[in-house]
Amino acid sequence: MSGTELLGFAAAILTTVCWLPQAFKTIRTKDTRSLSLVTQGALTLGVGLWLVYGILVDSPPIIFANGANFVLVALILALKVRYG
Amino acid sequence: MSGTELLGFAAAILTTVCWLPQAFKTIRTKDTRSLSLVTQGALTLGVGLWLVYGILVDSPPIIFANGANFVLVALILALKVRYG
Repeated sequence: MSGTELLGFAAAILTTVCWLPQAFKTIRTKDTRSLSLVTQGALTLGVGLWLVYGILVDSPPIIFANGANFVLVALILALKVRYG
Repeated sequence: MSGTELLGFAAAILTTVCWLPQAFKTIRTKDTRSLSLVTQGALTLGVGLWLVYGILVDSPPIIFANGANFVLVALILALKVRYG
């Protein structure tokens, strides 16, 4: 694997696992006041579209990264809707 | 442009402009308490790596989407660091 590919994988992993601390923090504190509902909703929809795009162009990296990403950002959106 | 390409562009635009409401909300309220510093830091680093990856593979869509994205997530990170 080339250095450029490694960089792309590092970017994909970081922009996916980065949602874990926010999910844990929100579950623990039940505090979502400073999160923007519009941002979280548009992000969830956008990541969902990336997932569909990955399926249509048959790209495993796009599917896996955005599939995992979708689960986490949708969870944070659900917590925002619940706690306000 | 095919429907699949349109879907990809819609995904790229949504996952970029979605950061505007969070940036405006944070600037207005100065409230960053429920934002995770680790998430915002890792997201900013990850989007920065996507930008470098886009430059290395010479992909204008990756460069433009992640360039705009980087400005917004780095701004939100700076607000988080400032307001705590």
